[in-house]
Amino acid sequence: FYNQLPDWSVLLAAVTTIFLAAEKQWTLLDWKPRRPDMLADAFGLGKIVQDGLVFKQNFSIRSYEIGADRTASIETLMNHLQETALNHVRSAGLMGDGFGATPEMSKRNLIWVVTKMRVLIKHYPSWGDVVEVDTWVGPTGKNGMRRDWHVRDHRTGQTILRATSVWVMMNKNTRKLSKVPEEVRAELGPYFVERAAIVDEDSRKLPKLDEDTTDYIKKGLTPRWSDLDVNQHVNNVKYIGWILESAPISFLENHELASMSLEYRRECGRDSVLQSLTAVSNDLTDGLPEAGIECQHLLQLECGTELVKGRTEWRPKHSLALRNMGPTPGGSA
Amino acid sequence: FYNQLPDWSVLLAAVTTIFLAAEKQWTLLDWKPRRPDMLADAFGLGKIVQDGLVFKQNFSIRSYEIGADRTASIETLMNHLQETALNHVRSAGLMGDGFGATPEMSKRNLIWVVTKMRVLIKHYPSWGDVVEVDTWVGPTGKNGMRRDWHVRDHRTGQTILRATSVWVMMNKNTRKLSKVPEEVRAELGPYFVERAAIVDEDSRKLPKLDEDTTDYIKKGLTPRWSDLDVNQHVNNVKYIGWILESAPISFLENHELASMSLEYRRECGRDSVLQSLTAVSNDLTDGLPEAGIECQHLLQLECGTELVKGRTEWRPKHSLALRNMGPTPGGSA
Repeated sequence: FYNQLPDWSVLLAAVTTIFLAAEKQWTLLDWKPRRPDMLADAFGLGKIVQDGLVFKQNFSIRSYEIGADRTASIETLMNHLQETALNHVRSAGLMGDGFGATPEMSKRNLIWVVTKMRVLIKHYPSWGDVVEVDTWVGPTGKNGMRRDWHVRDHRTGQTILRATSVWVMMNKNTRKLSKVPEEVRAELGPYFVERAAIVDEDSRKLPKLDEDTTDYIKKGLTPRWSDLDVNQHVNNVKYIGWILESAPISFLENHELASMSLEYRRECGRDSVLQSLTAVSNDLTDGLPEAGIECQHLLQLECGTELVKGRTEWRPKHSLALRNMGPTPGGSA
Repeated sequence: FYNQLPDWSVLLAAVTTIFLAAEKQWTLLDWKPRRPDMLADAFGLGKIVQDGLVFKQNFSIRSYEIGADRTASIETLMNHLQETALNHVRSAGLMGDGFGATPEMSKRNLIWVVTKMRVLIKHYPSWGDVVEVDTWVGPTGKNGMRRDWHVRDHRTGQTILRATSVWVMMNKNTRKLSKVPEEVRAELGPYFVERAAIVDEDSRKLPKLDEDTTDYIKKGLTPRWSDLDVNQHVNNVKYIGWILESAPISFLENHELASMSLEYRRECGRDSVLQSLTAVSNDLTDGLPEAGIECQHLLQLECGTELVKGRTEWRPKHSLALRNMGPTPGGSA
């Protein structure tokens, strides 16, 4: 497992976006008097189920969460994953004095950092649809935790997406990766579920892209103020928008993302200038092949430092669109 | 009223972002069989109150809706305004065959476009807070409709923001502004409420900024794919991020937006390249004055065409932060 990880000891600030952000948030929340039931479940939308091992929360897709496709954007779906992960940890009482860190982790200044994320999207929900997110954690390798999600349409039960992610422990002060101490393993063990959301994991290595071999490149990407989290780092969901940024709009118009594998290497701060590289298995501008298209992605600093590597698969949008929409009614614009 | 409006007849595509987007969405929604109660109120979060004149909906602030300030971003709050406006229109049955257009409007190919928006923000909610949005409509001038909002903290009743906006009618095909036909006035009248969310309207004219007189300018802003709505136009909430983009980050770090007045002139599409100009009443980098700071804003195309003019007021962040947070507890990072 460790062999696949790059040179962690020289990480400047590490890929801790969600976790450090959340850590600050919990600190803030702890300062405010508040009924303990108010936070995650103010309207009965989140709860622990299945003997305390699965956290379930519903989300109604809002008008501003849909994109040019008229359906929820991938960022929206990823945001729901983030929100349920945070609410799960809080609800389960796994939290020590920092976010996601158990009491034994807190004693040792250990925090979680995400290293991998894989998402398979079967179906994109529309405005007004209610999605039901299940999430749970499990063991992976010697020193990792897996977090899985299964998202369904609340009304029909149809699967919307399945996702899995890998988290490792890092010392907050030295920024070095750590093994899982026995005491921490004892805390986490009772919450682990062996069930995997995605059975056929994609274990292919992500190839190295560079400016000479890539098909598309978008330079000069900079964080907006509104992209920054409480640590003035870019939230890892925002990276996804940048990864897709280098693909031609004509391609994005006609295809929808079917799967995504990401490896997070480093984070980026408010003054970073990024490049987004995309290489494709087919020419994206060459008609609309019925078969899926595979892309390789790299998000890097201008100096060449890798932030995120990724692989995506796409399917033609029109076939799904026709199936979902039916005939155009008379009188509609 | 019309005198304040610029040269509407030459508008290329008009400031119809929300409305045209929503129009498409309704069309899509109409095609899908769906229980009528599922859409706006799947979890009892939105309903008509006060004899059918006010629409009320609650929102739980999610982890991904807070920004570097640890509180809900202005974009999040504006998104909630958009969502309640859309749900109100649907719930009230004001809708003809296009979004927001009544049956008599639809017959005449008339749609609503937003021209002005004014927001006073008293308090920014935190993750887990539940905000309660009230919205209603009323008459304004000879040919406008006002939409107001009052947003409160659901738990404490404390006011979070008050907002008002002005909408006029445009012919969908000719893109020209229209008077309100008598038949349409008869449809809308029963829903009008005279109560104004903001009593002391800011009637000062917004001055014209240009590259020579502005203090800050950010050039080369381009829409990301994820900024585009279903018409591949930029949603009007996204403009706000761009407007704030030209202020120095050191200023955004230390101040919070207290009020905002916007005039929407034209929309921008996916290939637009924008400039964001900001002029300030004080030097933003010159310490932290306790008094509020006023800024003038202009968002324009590179050719100089105005998209949005605005005025914002800011207050120092630390005073509020100290009041809300209390003393730092020992042991927190």
